Amino acid sequence: MPPRLIDSLSRTEELAEVFSDHSVLQATLQFEVALARVQERLGIIPRAAAEAIAAAADSDAFDLVALSRETLRAGTPGISLVKALTDAVRKRDSAAAGFVHWGTTSQDVADTALVLLLKKSWPLIEADLIRIDRALAKLAEQHRDTVMLGRTLLQSALPVTFGLKAASWFAAVRRGRLRLQVAFEEGLVLQFGGAAGTLAALGQQGSEVAHTLAAELGLTCPDAPWHTQRDRLAGLASACGVLTGSLGKMARDISLLMQTEVGEAFEAGTDGRGGSSTMPHKHNPIGCAVTLAASTRMPGLVASYLSAMVQEHERGTGGWQAEWTILADVMQTMGVAAASSAEVVEGLTVDKARMRQNLEATLGIIFAEKAAMILGKKIGRDAAHRLLEEATRKSVKEHRQLKEVLAGMSEVTEHLDPETLSKLDLPEDYLGSTEIFRAQQLGAHFPAIKKD
Amino acid sequence: MPPRLIDSLSRTEELAEVFSDHSVLQATLQFEVALARVQERLGIIPRAAAEAIAAAADSDAFDLVALSRETLRAGTPGISLVKALTDAVRKRDSAAAGFVHWGTTSQDVADTALVLLLKKSWPLIEADLIRIDRALAKLAEQHRDTVMLGRTLLQSALPVTFGLKAASWFAAVRRGRLRLQVAFEEGLVLQFGGAAGTLAALGQQGSEVAHTLAAELGLTCPDAPWHTQRDRLAGLASACGVLTGSLGKMARDISLLMQTEVGEAFEAGTDGRGGSSTMPHKHNPIGCAVTLAASTRMPGLVASYLSAMVQEHERGTGGWQAEWTILADVMQTMGVAAASSAEVVEGLTVDKARMRQNLEATLGIIFAEKAAMILGKKIGRDAAHRLLEEATRKSVKEHRQLKEVLAGMSEVTEHLDPETLSKLDLPEDYLGSTEIFRAQQLGAHFPAIKKD
Amino acid sequence: MPPRLIDSLSRTEELAEVFSDHSVLQATLQFEVALARVQERLGIIPRAAAEAIAAAADSDAFDLVALSRETLRAGTPGISLVKALTDAVRKRDSAAAGFVHWGTTSQDVADTALVLLLKKSWPLIEADLIRIDRALAKLAEQHRDTVMLGRTLLQSALPVTFGLKAASWFAAVRRGRLRLQVAFEEGLVLQFGGAAGTLAALGQQGSEVAHTLAAELGLTCPDAPWHTQRDRLAGLASACGVLTGSLGKMARDISLLMQTEVGEAFEAGTDGRGGSSTMPHKHNPIGCAVTLAASTRMPGLVASYLSAMVQEHERGTGGWQAEWTILADVMQTMGVAAASSAEVVEGLTVDKARMRQNLEATLGIIFAEKAAMILGKKIGRDAAHRLLEEATRKSVKEHRQLKEVLAGMSEVTEHLDPETLSKLDLPEDYLGSTEIFRAQQLGAHFPAIKKD
Amino acid sequence: MPPRLIDSLSRTEELAEVFSDHSVLQATLQFEVALARVQERLGIIPRAAAEAIAAAADSDAFDLVALSRETLRAGTPGISLVKALTDAVRKRDSAAAGFVHWGTTSQDVADTALVLLLKKSWPLIEADLIRIDRALAKLAEQHRDTVMLGRTLLQSALPVTFGLKAASWFAAVRRGRLRLQVAFEEGLVLQFGGAAGTLAALGQQGSEVAHTLAAELGLTCPDAPWHTQRDRLAGLASACGVLTGSLGKMARDISLLMQTEVGEAFEAGTDGRGGSSTMPHKHNPIGCAVTLAASTRMPGLVASYLSAMVQEHERGTGGWQAEWTILADVMQTMGVAAASSAEVVEGLTVDKARMRQNLEATLGIIFAEKAAMILGKKIGRDAAHRLLEEATRKSVKEHRQLKEVLAGMSEVTEHLDPETLSKLDLPEDYLGSTEIFRAQQLGAHFPAIKKD
Repeated sequence: MPPRLIDSLSRTEELAEVFSDHSVLQATLQFEVALARVQERLGIIPRAAAEAIAAAADSDAFDLVALSRETLRAGTPGISLVKALTDAVRKRDSAAAGFVHWGTTSQDVADTALVLLLKKSWPLIEADLIRIDRALAKLAEQHRDTVMLGRTLLQSALPVTFGLKAASWFAAVRRGRLRLQVAFEEGLVLQFGGAAGTLAALGQQGSEVAHTLAAELGLTCPDAPWHTQRDRLAGLASACGVLTGSLGKMARDISLLMQTEVGEAFEAGTDGRGGSSTMPHKHNPIGCAVTLAASTRMPGLVASYLSAMVQEHERGTGGWQAEWTILADVMQTMGVAAASSAEVVEGLTVDKARMRQNLEATLGIIFAEKAAMILGKKIGRDAAHRLLEEATRKSVKEHRQLKEVLAGMSEVTEHLDPETLSKLDLPEDYLGSTEIFRAQQLGAHFPAIKKD
Repeated sequence: MPPRLIDSLSRTEELAEVFSDHSVLQATLQFEVALARVQERLGIIPRAAAEAIAAAADSDAFDLVALSRETLRAGTPGISLVKALTDAVRKRDSAAAGFVHWGTTSQDVADTALVLLLKKSWPLIEADLIRIDRALAKLAEQHRDTVMLGRTLLQSALPVTFGLKAASWFAAVRRGRLRLQVAFEEGLVLQFGGAAGTLAALGQQGSEVAHTLAAELGLTCPDAPWHTQRDRLAGLASACGVLTGSLGKMARDISLLMQTEVGEAFEAGTDGRGGSSTMPHKHNPIGCAVTLAASTRMPGLVASYLSAMVQEHERGTGGWQAEWTILADVMQTMGVAAASSAEVVEGLTVDKARMRQNLEATLGIIFAEKAAMILGKKIGRDAAHRLLEEATRKSVKEHRQLKEVLAGMSEVTEHLDPETLSKLDLPEDYLGSTEIFRAQQLGAHFPAIKKD
Repeated sequence: MPPRLIDSLSRTEELAEVFSDHSVLQATLQFEVALARVQERLGIIPRAAAEAIAAAADSDAFDLVALSRETLRAGTPGISLVKALTDAVRKRDSAAAGFVHWGTTSQDVADTALVLLLKKSWPLIEADLIRIDRALAKLAEQHRDTVMLGRTLLQSALPVTFGLKAASWFAAVRRGRLRLQVAFEEGLVLQFGGAAGTLAALGQQGSEVAHTLAAELGLTCPDAPWHTQRDRLAGLASACGVLTGSLGKMARDISLLMQTEVGEAFEAGTDGRGGSSTMPHKHNPIGCAVTLAASTRMPGLVASYLSAMVQEHERGTGGWQAEWTILADVMQTMGVAAASSAEVVEGLTVDKARMRQNLEATLGIIFAEKAAMILGKKIGRDAAHRLLEEATRKSVKEHRQLKEVLAGMSEVTEHLDPETLSKLDLPEDYLGSTEIFRAQQLGAHFPAIKKD
Repeated sequence: MPPRLIDSLSRTEELAEVFSDHSVLQATLQFEVALARVQERLGIIPRAAAEAIAAAADSDAFDLVALSRETLRAGTPGISLVKALTDAVRKRDSAAAGFVHWGTTSQDVADTALVLLLKKSWPLIEADLIRIDRALAKLAEQHRDTVMLGRTLLQSALPVTFGLKAASWFAAVRRGRLRLQVAFEEGLVLQFGGAAGTLAALGQQGSEVAHTLAAELGLTCPDAPWHTQRDRLAGLASACGVLTGSLGKMARDISLLMQTEVGEAFEAGTDGRGGSSTMPHKHNPIGCAVTLAASTRMPGLVASYLSAMVQEHERGTGGWQAEWTILADVMQTMGVAAASSAEVVEGLTVDKARMRQNLEATLGIIFAEKAAMILGKKIGRDAAHRLLEEATRKSVKEHRQLKEVLAGMSEVTEHLDPETLSKLDLPEDYLGSTEIFRAQQLGAHFPAIKKD
């Protein structure tokens, strides 16, 4: 199922599926069934009860519309789901109904279900992050020597390589992915505390049930319930925020490179994306726009989650009730940013010729600083500086190459030989540590790909 | 259709319906049909085309799943919808297909559809705001003389009346509603500009089509398209933010009054809300929690919208694409806050006896300031102050009424007669301008209800 | 005094001055002196006390460092200021000391002082908004006929005029200014409620003191104290948020126009701004960057204010204490955005030749849609569409003008005469309602400037 | 120097000092002096130049007011500082002036200075976090057996211990501190890339200079400059956001416990904090309010930083320029939250008697669930449930202990012996895994303190 139309630019189908009614219900039932199974194994509830619960937990048998309605009435995700399950069990085995949701509380099932959905989200997100990783590493290798304009404050500055640019995107996304992975590992913990976080109804067996249940669900068992201590999930939301910011930065860069007047890189524009039948010159940066939309929405979502952390005593009044929507949105926003970015970088076309052309269109005046440094050693920095100011002004005014202008100034030719002058504006000669920075960013985190 | 389960605490069914796939599609079709009708009337497209378009625009005939999928591919709400409509028209009348979406652009239909959805949202929201208004005005009248503790920094301060409290909630919600109404009036404008906001394809007829179309749709015709000037909708989102903040404040107050240890006011807790079968003492503030959850989520949404305003040139890259999800969420969050608050205040039970009991439980020391002022006139402020410090300390320590303690101090009884002392802690005698403030807040905005 | 170095890009000197220690202290003293004066006039405190208070309220005589320290200790802006004033009065007249801050509370003075600072901020902000207004109106007039590329999703779309672009900026800023003015008018209200918002200590005179005090301070007297009803100031913060968003949009546009590869408009770059001695080609969009920085920071500030609205009972625990910093930041951020934008638009240089050159560099393929519409009337829309697709592809590939390519296609020349073809790519002929929209945006709000 | 008056509730003096003009200037100079020293050592600039630079870098000799003013003009923190240093060097040694800021760029010095200020902030923040850690561990040990009401949705739920509550606060703050430490370690990296991030002006020596410079400044040398890759600092801001959320949660809890009607715990209220001379019963939760104010403001700041991450190409236009103010505010907000919380928990008074009294005031009906479970084993869950419903209703109505009511019901006494009934409402008997959860939260992260 794809997302709702109104959200269609904000979610991928895969992640929308994770947070669909069916999937939410399943996660809920998964908790209750696992709990019953574990409690039966530990002798807390009868075997027949566990079996009846497992049998009744058929997600297709529930009325999702009624569940949604009753959840708003109850004010707690979990309550209506448990009621519906209990009713279903009662139909099979009225004695067993009494053992549904034994010793636990609605927040236990609601939080654990949410965590199970997060667990389902991660491999989907990770897969796209790995696609980005690979595509960027490849671009960074292929374009090791592709010189282009570096731009600061949207103005041409000094030459860089597209390889460095791609490597910088790569390293940021890689760091972001590692942070996110750590945050997921920390966040995927069981919630199990009972009415006030003490598992009172389970007497001395609470902790044992918790550990067994966590193992059954493939989650970590935390040192205590975290009904109102939401820092782990806050860390996870934040990690999504940071990574989406890095993806937004890349999308902004690429959308700027795709401008008609720049034309240095292009999204693939396949499969109905970005093209225009009447305007074949149009290459709309749709993948970038979708990513930028995600990075526009994400900071507010992270802020909402952080605001929601201030929860009262043993169960919050307002903060907790805000979380399902926020976290589902955070995950889906992260997911659409990752998927769009993956598509963009995998399909990216780079116009090396245009890159060089844009570089050359600066008339070489971006090398004025370089010329001043060479000349300065001969005639002093201040004198050199004055000469270059004059020369660059002339270059711009007369639309002539800076080196030509310089070649016509005797104060310059006295000190600089023609060969030096002719090579003045070779971008390859003024790249400084570009290659080191490129290689280090690839290598530091990704030894397998480093080829030299 | 109720909201998705994952969002079930964050939307009412009514507002969720407004932003449902079917409703979004309908709004889109409404724009296209109205456009065709108007253009036919103005002689721009053939009558047959307009008729074919109207006939094809049957919202039940579209594949909503495919539309959602293709919208993400296209990166623009509108493109896939127009394509599907064109296909449907072509099946009926191939010549007519060429006149679908004539002279307009995807953002025109997407934005206008959104505005039409906002227009559908307002009466739903307004109805709940009017319920709140009436319920609070009633409470403020009924409890004109219900004294209770005023509390500052969660500590008992001086007496107030519940009537004043309700009147203050009333006035804030009333102001917020008026601001929201103004913002809706300003925001409900047609979007119609064509590819670059100039209506170039309509030659000299653009402005006439715009005016007629706006009238057809019941929207205001703005002085120009607003493809990248989003301030009107930003104002609307902000007005929702402010009003939700005021509702959150009221919900916080009520949830605090409902605390077991305070017990001064209660939600009705009817219809499955807030009760607990095993814990009959429990009156969970569910309506307040849902409202507080909304007020927790809203500020981040407003921030997202404000961030999205920075849109490039004639159509944005990222900002605009973020808006559908944000605004739909803003409206639904506003809606659930209004609906929950309405239910809370309509069903509110006030325990006047408990209010007085809590007031009296302060032993009268909240009147120390008052005593010091009376006494100060006789023996000087500093001396009076020292006496009262001693007396209140004693009162707390010995758990005796302040006036009793004072009655045992000769420095006091020398100057204060027994009657003055005995009336010292009458809360009704220390209400200052309470009644004026209560009445003014009701009356300033709501002359019809003012009774005295 | 300019702002702190760490905030130097985030505040103007004028607004920083408004929120300086000296100015904050003055506003505080202004409240206390006015209160004493009014109470003396109404016979509540002795004339000598009012005089002593006025005499002691010399803002240069206070230890600002100690005040700041003690304010954090006290946890309330106001308490330490009142203590210091009382001490100063006591030194002059010990009896008078007892009448300082009579019947009021720390929040009264803190909130009213804040409102007085807001009142001082508005004319400073307004002055810059008026500068923007005038400069944009002028640009919109001067460039009525300056055609340029309209750009959607950062891609060349159809021709527009710079006059329309400037008029759209103008209208958005104008709307924003009007909203802000309304919000200031609503927000500039006296705070005066005493310990629990009832003015209990003033008996029957509370309301009279309030009205007289408001008049004395040049503020509106509200219908009741608003200690925990912060919607008016929330509306003000939001209005700043919306307007800063509109200014950010303009700054984004201009910074994009200033790109080396676009080069259509430039900031003045005077007085040490944006230039570079070694790189004379560099025109850094510094004014735009400062504005965009403001629009980056503002949404989070608005969200913080909205979050802070949820305040408990008669005085908040946390929400209120957050406000001084937030609102001072909101005002200063608004101020720096307005001032930077004013400088940018007043100094803006427009390169009309480059605008036309960039338009022409599209080879006329932006007129393919227009050609298809003309041709479609002769040979049907579908056939026309196919021809144009072919022609534009050819035009891009062979880097020839679209009209030349079309002139070489017999299917085209059969139906289009040479004159029509030769005029195909005249941008002036494909502006649609551009002039109407430009004029309406200027005129709708600014009758005085409308010239035709 | 304490913070500005307007910010006095939002910053501690220590952190305000870190971001004071003097400190900012010093950090800037530290970068330039270290750079010169390193470049001299590597033979890049003359020894005399390095010495002149070091000699001129006297932070007391600069005009801070002029620096702030010029920074706004320049639009970049760094430019005006470098100019002023160059002037100062020129006065000493005109040749040396040419070697100031050699091969680097304004963002290098601005970012590195910021990182140096972050480095100064961490030990100040950490010290307060360690205070919190110790105080909470102590409270959690001391109150291992202090039973109190657990409260969910602000309603009494089941018994917990204050030890568990404190341990949960402890563990959350501990986790937050560890995350913050990791984020600081990751974030404290040198910025050094030159004009376009390639260190072009340093030829082959760029990387060597970078490593030596990082060592000189005690910072990590990253694998590449990060002019527009801000994820490390975003991670740091987020970690502050998460930890401040946890502190806000604790402050909310404590402020609720301090309510007049609850009275279970109190801030120390020493040194001018929270007390009131006329109202000795008042114990304002000032430390909590200041912390809650910080947690109200922080989410918006984090959102602003995340929004600012979307920076263009090799240097951002707006995003970067927003950062100094945001990060300085994040650090100071974190600092004031940590300091206030430390003071609160170190001075916390716990009223064990009141805790038990509030527990007992529930009439034992919080044990209804427990009774139903015991009884259910004998008469079936449904029958037991019905009995308890009746009993609790009666208990509330007649204001009698639940166990007394039960003792009067023959259906109950048939199955439950008097001893069981008499112990029904012993909170100590219904704590479940409380002690395990308490101990695990202390022990999991803090082996040294675990005593049993």
